[in-house]
Amino acid sequence: MLSIKQILQYSILEDSFYGDLTSEILQISGNGKFVAISKEDAIICGLKIFQKIFKLINSSIEVKLFFKDGNFVKSGEIIAEIKGNLRDILKGERIALNFIQKLSGISTNTYYFVKQIEGTNCKILDTRKTTPLLRKLEKYAVRIGGGYNHRFSLFDGILIKDNHIRAVGGIENAIKLALKNKPIGKEIEVEVSSLEELEIAIKYPINIVMLDNFNIDMIKQALSLINNRLKVEVSGGVNLNNVRDIALLGVDYISVGALTHSSRWIDISLELIK
Amino acid sequence: MLSIKQILQYSILEDSFYGDLTSEILQISGNGKFVAISKEDAIICGLKIFQKIFKLINSSIEVKLFFKDGNFVKSGEIIAEIKGNLRDILKGERIALNFIQKLSGISTNTYYFVKQIEGTNCKILDTRKTTPLLRKLEKYAVRIGGGYNHRFSLFDGILIKDNHIRAVGGIENAIKLALKNKPIGKEIEVEVSSLEELEIAIKYPINIVMLDNFNIDMIKQALSLINNRLKVEVSGGVNLNNVRDIALLGVDYISVGALTHSSRWIDISLELIK
Amino acid sequence: MLSIKQILQYSILEDSFYGDLTSEILQISGNGKFVAISKEDAIICGLKIFQKIFKLINSSIEVKLFFKDGNFVKSGEIIAEIKGNLRDILKGERIALNFIQKLSGISTNTYYFVKQIEGTNCKILDTRKTTPLLRKLEKYAVRIGGGYNHRFSLFDGILIKDNHIRAVGGIENAIKLALKNKPIGKEIEVEVSSLEELEIAIKYPINIVMLDNFNIDMIKQALSLINNRLKVEVSGGVNLNNVRDIALLGVDYISVGALTHSSRWIDISLELIK
Amino acid sequence: MLSIKQILQYSILEDSFYGDLTSEILQISGNGKFVAISKEDAIICGLKIFQKIFKLINSSIEVKLFFKDGNFVKSGEIIAEIKGNLRDILKGERIALNFIQKLSGISTNTYYFVKQIEGTNCKILDTRKTTPLLRKLEKYAVRIGGGYNHRFSLFDGILIKDNHIRAVGGIENAIKLALKNKPIGKEIEVEVSSLEELEIAIKYPINIVMLDNFNIDMIKQALSLINNRLKVEVSGGVNLNNVRDIALLGVDYISVGALTHSSRWIDISLELIK
Amino acid sequence: MLSIKQILQYSILEDSFYGDLTSEILQISGNGKFVAISKEDAIICGLKIFQKIFKLINSSIEVKLFFKDGNFVKSGEIIAEIKGNLRDILKGERIALNFIQKLSGISTNTYYFVKQIEGTNCKILDTRKTTPLLRKLEKYAVRIGGGYNHRFSLFDGILIKDNHIRAVGGIENAIKLALKNKPIGKEIEVEVSSLEELEIAIKYPINIVMLDNFNIDMIKQALSLINNRLKVEVSGGVNLNNVRDIALLGVDYISVGALTHSSRWIDISLELIK
Amino acid sequence: MLSIKQILQYSILEDSFYGDLTSEILQISGNGKFVAISKEDAIICGLKIFQKIFKLINSSIEVKLFFKDGNFVKSGEIIAEIKGNLRDILKGERIALNFIQKLSGISTNTYYFVKQIEGTNCKILDTRKTTPLLRKLEKYAVRIGGGYNHRFSLFDGILIKDNHIRAVGGIENAIKLALKNKPIGKEIEVEVSSLEELEIAIKYPINIVMLDNFNIDMIKQALSLINNRLKVEVSGGVNLNNVRDIALLGVDYISVGALTHSSRWIDISLELIK
Repeated sequence: MLSIKQILQYSILEDSFYGDLTSEILQISGNGKFVAISKEDAIICGLKIFQKIFKLINSSIEVKLFFKDGNFVKSGEIIAEIKGNLRDILKGERIALNFIQKLSGISTNTYYFVKQIEGTNCKILDTRKTTPLLRKLEKYAVRIGGGYNHRFSLFDGILIKDNHIRAVGGIENAIKLALKNKPIGKEIEVEVSSLEELEIAIKYPINIVMLDNFNIDMIKQALSLINNRLKVEVSGGVNLNNVRDIALLGVDYISVGALTHSSRWIDISLELIK
Repeated sequence: MLSIKQILQYSILEDSFYGDLTSEILQISGNGKFVAISKEDAIICGLKIFQKIFKLINSSIEVKLFFKDGNFVKSGEIIAEIKGNLRDILKGERIALNFIQKLSGISTNTYYFVKQIEGTNCKILDTRKTTPLLRKLEKYAVRIGGGYNHRFSLFDGILIKDNHIRAVGGIENAIKLALKNKPIGKEIEVEVSSLEELEIAIKYPINIVMLDNFNIDMIKQALSLINNRLKVEVSGGVNLNNVRDIALLGVDYISVGALTHSSRWIDISLELIK
Repeated sequence: MLSIKQILQYSILEDSFYGDLTSEILQISGNGKFVAISKEDAIICGLKIFQKIFKLINSSIEVKLFFKDGNFVKSGEIIAEIKGNLRDILKGERIALNFIQKLSGISTNTYYFVKQIEGTNCKILDTRKTTPLLRKLEKYAVRIGGGYNHRFSLFDGILIKDNHIRAVGGIENAIKLALKNKPIGKEIEVEVSSLEELEIAIKYPINIVMLDNFNIDMIKQALSLINNRLKVEVSGGVNLNNVRDIALLGVDYISVGALTHSSRWIDISLELIK
Repeated sequence: MLSIKQILQYSILEDSFYGDLTSEILQISGNGKFVAISKEDAIICGLKIFQKIFKLINSSIEVKLFFKDGNFVKSGEIIAEIKGNLRDILKGERIALNFIQKLSGISTNTYYFVKQIEGTNCKILDTRKTTPLLRKLEKYAVRIGGGYNHRFSLFDGILIKDNHIRAVGGIENAIKLALKNKPIGKEIEVEVSSLEELEIAIKYPINIVMLDNFNIDMIKQALSLINNRLKVEVSGGVNLNNVRDIALLGVDYISVGALTHSSRWIDISLELIK
Repeated sequence: MLSIKQILQYSILEDSFYGDLTSEILQISGNGKFVAISKEDAIICGLKIFQKIFKLINSSIEVKLFFKDGNFVKSGEIIAEIKGNLRDILKGERIALNFIQKLSGISTNTYYFVKQIEGTNCKILDTRKTTPLLRKLEKYAVRIGGGYNHRFSLFDGILIKDNHIRAVGGIENAIKLALKNKPIGKEIEVEVSSLEELEIAIKYPINIVMLDNFNIDMIKQALSLINNRLKVEVSGGVNLNNVRDIALLGVDYISVGALTHSSRWIDISLELIK
Repeated sequence: MLSIKQILQYSILEDSFYGDLTSEILQISGNGKFVAISKEDAIICGLKIFQKIFKLINSSIEVKLFFKDGNFVKSGEIIAEIKGNLRDILKGERIALNFIQKLSGISTNTYYFVKQIEGTNCKILDTRKTTPLLRKLEKYAVRIGGGYNHRFSLFDGILIKDNHIRAVGGIENAIKLALKNKPIGKEIEVEVSSLEELEIAIKYPINIVMLDNFNIDMIKQALSLINNRLKVEVSGGVNLNNVRDIALLGVDYISVGALTHSSRWIDISLELIK
């Protein structure tokens, strides 16, 4: 696995391993001052990474941050000021922006979902549908946007899904095996695809049930069957339009894959001002 | 920089470094057969990577591919069949899907842009606004969708942008320096922000001019000034609604950052069928 | 983080980066057959790694394994046969043995603990006191010996320890914060250093309590206070002599750091027989 | 091969790649002061590594060391003071301890062997039976404990062992080949399994002979045969009880695999004091 | 791909992974001052790398540089002064020298070629015949010597060579395909092996033609055929004796593989002076 | 440190990380057959690496080798035949050639030195003046050419040089310290800069003396002083013209830095023949 520092270093190499041809032929030298401006309203995320990119290229570059991750930034606001060697700042420009635009996109999108369910006891969760190699950063952006993290990986949480259930010949067997072999410190979550499966699941002392692709009506029936005996997660087909209606039903968690896999980037740009 | 193989290996570790807790407590063993199904129409991309993920986990897993990258897949179609060790297939499921869903998303979105400009001589280009560490794969997905690649990095092409122009004190000086120091094998592209800058630029034997955030009217005037003396790229504010109008003006290239930074994933899932 | 394959590869390089001087000056060539023999009774562990070391050096070396991980091997028994290029087998000998001797040492020691508590409902757990870089392998060896794994890392389980309690100003505050911020899927375990702390802890719906360095008498009192309301782990000062007495008190888990940090290696050697 | 810095970095990732869940839910923040205390008498080793672990996590953490590697530390003594960000110190606690406990274990055990042979001209040597990936550190701990290093790897020293002898058809042939091809700068050491082999070996101008698993009586006869013509190493079956008797016979080196493979860890703990 | 820092770090490990045996047994300690002296006239190159090697080993070592890359240094001149920990400077000595000697060798050799063609409009180019892993550094040394870089890799420039021409069935087809698929920003260069091929090539709007192994006479005829319509590169069989004659014919570029593959090292040594 | 496989993989990435632009626009596909031809007489070296480069790119490429490392190849001879995917072979061409040309250059140059001293008892040695990252390969090429390896690194041999001598205040002190702390298995070599230093050195039981930059006359006097009591290495100022004269004086070793640092590459090319 790559450390955050390695992720940043490899990203820089990806863009400028053999140098920056344009700056070289323009013989750019000396120092300059840039500002990073958000071109739209956003929950900003990734400021330290933005800063670190420039520091990794040239530790004498100064990056002043005017916000903290999680702050709301309005269109047109300056989020950072970068001073130092012109050529090195130009070298880091695109990479630093790529990170902060992407992460802010996730935080902002998460924020919209969270805002929709304000006042309820429900939490917005992410999934494992993350960009390869960037999971840790993307899950951080979800938290910054006000969401919560579901498990980070296959090894830190138990979630019995449809394919597991088929693999062991049915939900009852799956749950029995899980209860028997449950490791210390972990809860057991079971995904159900139907009310029938749910009825079986709730007979056992599991901790969480995930209602997979249930519509509003089915969720209602499910909640009535569960009767607060265990935590409930809704997953599948959730969007900004229906998320509040689902939350208001009284579920504990709503997981949204789109937070990490389909948030568009926030438009942020760097401008040389002096 | 990471090789493709390293990207895949680190992605697997990111998800299952300490194993797959659920499969372990369910004591899943033996072999099984899965199918990967597209849940929506798409230009499929990333099939070899999808296959390679499973092979890296367990080289005896068999992955039969029913399509080739670039093929159009209809909703509901089976795109691959995976046979072998149940536990190892479940371990690779999410990672393999993450890659193919993301890449197919880019190819499909690119395809929609390309289709819009059918019949024109214009080409859809990508940008350097790519996901950190995945640039090579994302640019491949653009090609698979029918788009073309702009430069891959700062070192393989010359593109004089606004910040460069400010850094050397104006467009005229920038172009003169570029022409003087032009390396063998590379063309010179200059970004202009106004018709005034364009008028200066076209006095010099540069190769391509990029019209940055020009509206339709300005593009028309620009083309008339340029009069076919050099290649023209339009960049900024392009979407599926206006791309054809722009292409019909007769520009050579339209670059679209959203291809790589804001394509949503295609919904594809894996199902154990036996 | 290093994959298992990387661990093996770096281990080989550590021993023979610039080659094997002795085999070179002796101009050893041709093929040979070796046997690996256990010089003492043991629960064998690491057979696949033992095999893989030779395969990584020369994929044509054949390694026949006569046991499976977890099998009991008697002193003098042949555990594997290795055939192939003499020089390459000699190159892997020490590294392959270092892995299997170390892992078998852990499994065997674990087995002795497990055997001591036979017939009780108690489980032997490992800790995070593992050899740097080898945690995954060592925890595997614990399982092979019949033990169970406590959390693998700081990120896959919640365990509130003495220093955490001091850091937030007392056990009550620590537990309240944990309950408030508990993530989906994880249970809460709290370490207590005294019966007083325990009395506070059990007022809250936590999942597991760890009795740190409690003697038999204190454990008894603790169990009486807890009264089966939550799971109990005993930690500290456990050895082969007292483990059964502790288990018989009715605790759920006994964790033993020595499994991973102080198991001596099993004596296993490789002999050229032809 | 991994540099020391890489070993430390990967060890940290192994424990906290996705963060420290407990500190996060307890929202631990601010600064604190910890002391590291030895819970038993020991030759301390690994202080710089202990310090470096915290520095790698957060370079602003201050680690004051009260001893130097090789110092004797009494049970209850404070060996270091750590000040700085609470959450980052808690993140490094276990890893820093794992290194210093392990290395101090080796140094202390080595010291006991060295002390046993005080007053003789004999030296205690380590072997290549080291923990994979940690050889360099473990051999350092042996030196700190007063021992000496045998060769570090297969490429920096010549040691003709039983399997080599069989591979080339006998000890006489092995020695002849070694002498013929001896590289500049290296001595030749030969392992003998019997007095018969020894008689052959000493007819040649080799530099060191290793008596493998010889008992006291056989060592005496061997020394008489050798008659100071070459250096003598004793190996196999050595422990704290018999090491002095062996040394008093007048051998030059005694090698002890257990120094690196079976030293138990020293008990050291970290306590938040403010 | 390796970053420059990784190249330096791995080079250090290559020489002193297990330490520096000689300094250890001599128990060298304390500080000292060394000077690096050029033993011959040279264009010095690699000063920052020379400095960085010592800094990577011990950041407190001070390296004062008396020249800049590209300066002409006379035999006997001191090029740098190194102060600090004696043992660490001795550890870096050979590696630091290996880099600066090699790179200065390339710059100096390049300089001789460049000097030979002074007053002409021709440029000396390097090739891809570079030392594996060191291409970026070697191409930098060429620039420092006054030469120019041809493409850095297969992905940043188009050069249609003899094997490509055969692969697609002739030069005409190759050029047609290249023109049809030419990517934005890149020029097309075609290698011709005969005047016949040249006659075909110049019928198309390519940018550069490479005359491969043409003698003076053939180059003359080629230039007359080309008649300034495109840029001309001469390659093959060029040396210090004939390079001026070729340049005087009026070609644009002369590429010399020997710059990177056969420049001998400059003799530079390090001396402890205090 | 990099394994050989990593060296090859990174070398390939260095040249084609983002692909091979020329082959792509020429849409080269299908299979072909190439031959590798030596354009000059040479001792060939690096054939397995040459083969491995293609195999790493595409394991289905077949590489038939017509020689073994160390064979004498005449100008015009075919040394290998490569069959398979055209595009992948073209991708590996330059890298495979770079390795074999460089290594064969070293072997051939070494061979010339070795041949010059035929019939004497002297051995040609290499030095640590090797290309960073490629030491292991270059020292292999020296052996293939008939030379012998001096130590591989600072950690596998003792060589007391001028700077060490100054660091400890004189040759006498240096030798005394070395003898006192000499580790098992290593000989002691001392470099002397004058006959005066030599006279001191030979009073001690060291193993080898290196005469640094001694002329023929001084070597004669040195040998007379030494009188066969220890091994003698000559270093500095050795070339093909004087090497035999030096060898005939009766020295044991002559070390030649130029073998690795200044051997020019052998001209070898790849041609598509079908």
